[in-house]
Amino acid sequence: MTQSVETDVVIIGAGPVGLFAVFELGLLDLECHLIDILDRPGGQCAELYPEKPIYDIPAWPVISGQDLTDRLMEQIKPFNPQFHFNRMVTALRKLDDGRFEVETDEDEVLRAKVVVVAAGGGSFQPKRPPIPGIEAFEGHSVFYAVRRMEEFRDHDLLIVGGGDSALDWTLNLHPIANSVTLVHRRPQFRAADDSVNKMFALRDEGALRFEVGQVSALSGEDGQLRSATLKGPESEFEVECTRLLPFFGLTMKLGPIADWGLNLHENLITVDTEKFETSEAGIFAIGDINWYPGKLKLILSGFHEAALMAQAARRIVRPDERVVFQYTTSSTSLQKKLGVK
Amino acid sequence: MTQSVETDVVIIGAGPVGLFAVFELGLLDLECHLIDILDRPGGQCAELYPEKPIYDIPAWPVISGQDLTDRLMEQIKPFNPQFHFNRMVTALRKLDDGRFEVETDEDEVLRAKVVVVAAGGGSFQPKRPPIPGIEAFEGHSVFYAVRRMEEFRDHDLLIVGGGDSALDWTLNLHPIANSVTLVHRRPQFRAADDSVNKMFALRDEGALRFEVGQVSALSGEDGQLRSATLKGPESEFEVECTRLLPFFGLTMKLGPIADWGLNLHENLITVDTEKFETSEAGIFAIGDINWYPGKLKLILSGFHEAALMAQAARRIVRPDERVVFQYTTSSTSLQKKLGVK
Repeated sequence: MTQSVETDVVIIGAGPVGLFAVFELGLLDLECHLIDILDRPGGQCAELYPEKPIYDIPAWPVISGQDLTDRLMEQIKPFNPQFHFNRMVTALRKLDDGRFEVETDEDEVLRAKVVVVAAGGGSFQPKRPPIPGIEAFEGHSVFYAVRRMEEFRDHDLLIVGGGDSALDWTLNLHPIANSVTLVHRRPQFRAADDSVNKMFALRDEGALRFEVGQVSALSGEDGQLRSATLKGPESEFEVECTRLLPFFGLTMKLGPIADWGLNLHENLITVDTEKFETSEAGIFAIGDINWYPGKLKLILSGFHEAALMAQAARRIVRPDERVVFQYTTSSTSLQKKLGVK
Repeated sequence: MTQSVETDVVIIGAGPVGLFAVFELGLLDLECHLIDILDRPGGQCAELYPEKPIYDIPAWPVISGQDLTDRLMEQIKPFNPQFHFNRMVTALRKLDDGRFEVETDEDEVLRAKVVVVAAGGGSFQPKRPPIPGIEAFEGHSVFYAVRRMEEFRDHDLLIVGGGDSALDWTLNLHPIANSVTLVHRRPQFRAADDSVNKMFALRDEGALRFEVGQVSALSGEDGQLRSATLKGPESEFEVECTRLLPFFGLTMKLGPIADWGLNLHENLITVDTEKFETSEAGIFAIGDINWYPGKLKLILSGFHEAALMAQAARRIVRPDERVVFQYTTSSTSLQKKLGVK
């Protein structure tokens, strides 16, 4: 059943800029729902460099991507944002009443007067391995992420990859799967030692199989996988499997955003510098995904863009109420919203 | 003798935005001198609300004006900025070689290819008390600040006001003055209790005089003060004095900036949103002093403006070198400049 949500503002992307947008919108009494393809807030910061130091956040001589995310989450807590993680936005439509409808691949529909695209470099998407004909099996027998473990119960799994995701899912799924075969092109892994040791121990017990090699072909029909051809260092052989899980890392793609009819400049969304609104009134773009003359892809610029966007969003959501610009340092009403007064 | 300085960029104003500009310019190898009318960095933040919490600095759920200033000073330390405090800029001229010359009221001249106005609400200027004819004595016998205590040695001082400045200078100057009279319109003070108690103890010892009242007239000629008329609760009387120090607080004024020929919009400097350059090429304006469509007077907006300005400043200072945009998280050369690699 389609789940449906009504709110003031839908923010696509829960990276640092999307998170700070919640703060600026919250100060103006606007309620937000955020959608992100990842399973937690922070976007690139949390996914690509959680422990890497960042030096150019103002008044933070040094901060890690994860700490930055944690601080922003603390700062927006008073506004109780609603997160929809592990979702990809599949469609964005304008309704007859002027609102927008945002659809996700988890059978959800969110309706709001304002949509803010804060999608950074686009959506993180799994890299597709170079196996001929793999597209025909995707979504039926080939999966790039595990959303519900139950979907893999009693299946013969072929897991491919040498990083943490491949190892973690090998260990987590083997108790419920009918069989698990892990394939990696060499016997060394880029995963936590502990996971690697556990995997080899299970292999030695006969609880799972590990093969060095690469998947070169898939067999099956109507999307239903029957077996895969493995090309090992010495020979080629068949492995029976009904589900394939390739973990080849993530790549950034503009994804469906490219199809929303917004004006683009070299794959970035063109905005004005007064409101950071796109070519479609009511849809804003902030952070690394937008473009305007002088644009720098800096987190601090996204923060500024969020503040100016919020003023314009407020006028759209509540056109009849005058906005009086106030400072958090001196306004008792803002301090009440922040829960400090 | 006029002191003369040559540098890459002169920044007028050492508030949070002026300080962060040092960081963004420093990443691009530009050297900065900063001029401020106050005696320390931080601008309004440090002067008006050093201990008041600010809630809207991104990733700082709460921070005081003083802490924000301290953090920014720490962040720009690797770039070794040169500060000129207690100075007011009196003139800004373009030289024939294309550079600018900035003159201060401390007989200094700074020359640079780029000038950045980060003067916030303008310069803090002392409020002038409503005493007829006081202008004629200003700079000769009437002073609104103490820059060098020695200038007050052996004088008969009349200090007016009820705040910390009036009390602090009463206590600091009485050992070197010939006499000190403090005047306030009532016997209660807005100053630290400890200072008030010390002042009354010195009064009881006969080391200084305290009168309740207001200065209603000044006598003297050629700028040389001889006496002042005090209007007390019951009577009017004369006090002999050769120096008058009124401490009636500070007010914000655009000051000489209004005379530099830059395009203004309601007393704010008009800039573009690509480079934050004023109507005069090479002069930039960032932070609360500028205006463009959508402008919000937020510290975080000034940070963004500083980053975009820096790119343009670099092209002016070193027109022949290509700037490659780099991130502090991944660039070893930026990390070396920051002293962390």
